[in-house]
Amino acid sequence: MRIIVTGANGFIGRKLVAALLQAGSLPGPDGTPVPLSDVRLFDVVAPEVPAALANGTVPVRSIAGDLSDPAALDRLMTGGADVVFHLAAVVSAQAEEDFGLGMRVNFDATRALLDATRTAAPDGAARLVFTSSVAVFGGDLPHVVRDDTAPVPQSSYGVQKAMSELLVQDYARRGFVDGRTVRLPTIVVRPGPPNKAASTFASSIIREPLNGESAICPVPEDTGLFVASPRCIVANLLHAASVPAARFGHGRTVMLPGLSVTVAEMIEALRAEAGAEAVARIRFEDDARIRAIVASWPARFQTDRAAALGFQADASFAAIVRAFVEDEMGVPNQE
Amino acid sequence: MRIIVTGANGFIGRKLVAALLQAGSLPGPDGTPVPLSDVRLFDVVAPEVPAALANGTVPVRSIAGDLSDPAALDRLMTGGADVVFHLAAVVSAQAEEDFGLGMRVNFDATRALLDATRTAAPDGAARLVFTSSVAVFGGDLPHVVRDDTAPVPQSSYGVQKAMSELLVQDYARRGFVDGRTVRLPTIVVRPGPPNKAASTFASSIIREPLNGESAICPVPEDTGLFVASPRCIVANLLHAASVPAARFGHGRTVMLPGLSVTVAEMIEALRAEAGAEAVARIRFEDDARIRAIVASWPARFQTDRAAALGFQADASFAAIVRAFVEDEMGVPNQE
Repeated sequence: MRIIVTGANGFIGRKLVAALLQAGSLPGPDGTPVPLSDVRLFDVVAPEVPAALANGTVPVRSIAGDLSDPAALDRLMTGGADVVFHLAAVVSAQAEEDFGLGMRVNFDATRALLDATRTAAPDGAARLVFTSSVAVFGGDLPHVVRDDTAPVPQSSYGVQKAMSELLVQDYARRGFVDGRTVRLPTIVVRPGPPNKAASTFASSIIREPLNGESAICPVPEDTGLFVASPRCIVANLLHAASVPAARFGHGRTVMLPGLSVTVAEMIEALRAEAGAEAVARIRFEDDARIRAIVASWPARFQTDRAAALGFQADASFAAIVRAFVEDEMGVPNQE
Repeated sequence: MRIIVTGANGFIGRKLVAALLQAGSLPGPDGTPVPLSDVRLFDVVAPEVPAALANGTVPVRSIAGDLSDPAALDRLMTGGADVVFHLAAVVSAQAEEDFGLGMRVNFDATRALLDATRTAAPDGAARLVFTSSVAVFGGDLPHVVRDDTAPVPQSSYGVQKAMSELLVQDYARRGFVDGRTVRLPTIVVRPGPPNKAASTFASSIIREPLNGESAICPVPEDTGLFVASPRCIVANLLHAASVPAARFGHGRTVMLPGLSVTVAEMIEALRAEAGAEAVARIRFEDDARIRAIVASWPARFQTDRAAALGFQADASFAAIVRAFVEDEMGVPNQE
C-alpha cells in the first residue's frame, strides 16, 4: 500500500502520519488490511519523519515542493500511489488576502494532483481523500445545515474548496480517481501557539488556561461552533480512505460529524477538567471583526450521511478536552 | 454601453443579440437606460450580424476565436466592456465524451473571461451574466428542488457549470466583476432540426407536427420536464444584466422560473393549437438511454428567489407553443 500525504507538516498532517505508521496498514479495495509499503510525505518544507517512526519497517520518504510545480508533482508521484491524503492548503485568511495564491494552491494544485493521481493509476483505483471545510457554507443558512444544503461560500477559501469538491466528484464518477471529500468541522483543541485563524480562540480558551496561561475570548459566551477533536478528525480521515467506493452513491462529499457547542459549554467543560481557577484565566474582550466572521459559520449540522457511512463523532466536549490533556500535555490516558 | 456576447452563434445567442439591438439600450448601474454604443459578438466561427440590424446606429463587431486562446480574448476585450453575456459552452454530451475539452471551454475559458473582464474594468463595475443549467443537479434529489438544494452533478458538464457558478460568486463578492449566474430550464420549443441533446425530443414533438412532419417521442407520456420558452429565457437574460447588484444578497446564482410539465400536457397544448391531426404525427418509441437521462433531471423547482428578483416565467405551455408559432413559423402575433 503506497501512501501520499500532502500538507504533511501541518498539525493534522503530522497526526495522520503518526496514526498511519502506527497502524502499519490500511484496508485495501476488498476491506482487508494491506501493509504500508511506501509512505511519501509532501510539504513546502521537507516534512520531518518522526524519529520514533523513521526506524520502522515502512520506508518513509520526505519530499519538499510546491504542488503547483509540475516537476515537484512528478517527484511526488514517482512510484505510484494507492491512497493520497490531500491536506495541503493555503488557510482561509491567506486565501482571502491573496486571491491568486489561494486559487493556485487550493484549486489548481488539487486539480493537478487529481490529474497526476489519474496518470499514476490509469485504472482509476487510487483513492484520494480531499479535506474540505464548513467554510463552503455561508449566506442565508437554515438553522440546521443538512447534507443537501447548497454551499454559498462567503470566502475565496470556501469557493476554492467547493470547486475542488466538484472536481473530486467528477473524477470519481468518471472512474479517473476514487476520490472522497470530507468537510471538516472546526478542529479543537489545537496544540501550539495561537495562529491568525479567526477560530484560533476556540483552542486558546481551553489550551492556555490548562497551561496556566491567560486567554482572550473575542466572541460572546452564546456563540455557537461546530467542532471535532484532532483524534476524531484523524480517525475519520483514515475511515474516509477505507469506505468502499460503492457506498458513496451519487455524491463523494461528506460533512463530517461534530459537536454543536457554545463557548459557555466549552468553558463549563474546562471548569470540570481544571476548575474555576483555569476558567478565571479567560478574559472576554469583544472583537467585532472576529465576532462577525465566527457568527457567519454554521454551528448546527445534520450529518446523517456521515453516520450512515460509519464516520464517528466525539462523545462530548469534555472528552475533547480530556483527549487534548492526554495527547498534548503528557498526561497518560487514565481510562 | 459596451456589450459582449459569447456564443453569439448559438440559438439563444442570436435571439439575445436581436433583442439587445432592438431595445437599443440596457439599464445602467442606476437603472436608467443607457444606449448601446458598441456590441461585440464572439464565437468559434465569426457570428453573422443580422442584415436588418447591421445598418443600425449601433456599431456591431463580429469576432471569431477560442475563448481559451489569450490572443482571442485580448481581441474580444479591446475597447472594454460594461456588460458581458457569457453563453459560449460545449454541450453536455460533448463535455461527457471529451473531458479535457469540456474543462477547457466550460470552466477554464469562463475563468479567463472573468479575469479579462476584471482587467478591462478594474473598478469591478462590469456586469457578467453567466448561463448555467439544471444539469448542476443530480443524484438523490428532493421532490421539489429548492434554491438552497446542493448541486451534486452527474455529468462533467454539470460539474463545470457548478464550478463556474462558484467563480462568478467569488469574483462578485470580492468586487472583481459584477457577475450573475442564471440556471436555465430546458428550452422548448427550439427552432431548426433536432440535435444530439437528450432533450431534443421535447422540441421535436411540438415543432415537427406543427410543420406537418412526424416526430418520435422516446420517453413515456408521464415524463416530467422543467421548461421555458426562448422568449422567456432572452427576457430573463436581459433582466439578469439589469438587477441591481445589492439585490442579490449573499449569492449570485439564480434558478430561473419555468413550467413543470409532463409530455402528456405538452401534447395537449399541441392538440389545442393544431388539432388531433398534429398529435397523430407523434410516435412513441421507447429509448431506454434517453429515458434514463431525462428521468435523472429534476422536473419540479421552487424558484422563489428568481420571483423575488423579478425574473419571469411563461404563462402556460400553450403560450410557449403559441410563441413558437409566432416567432418561428411566420405567423404574426394575433393578440
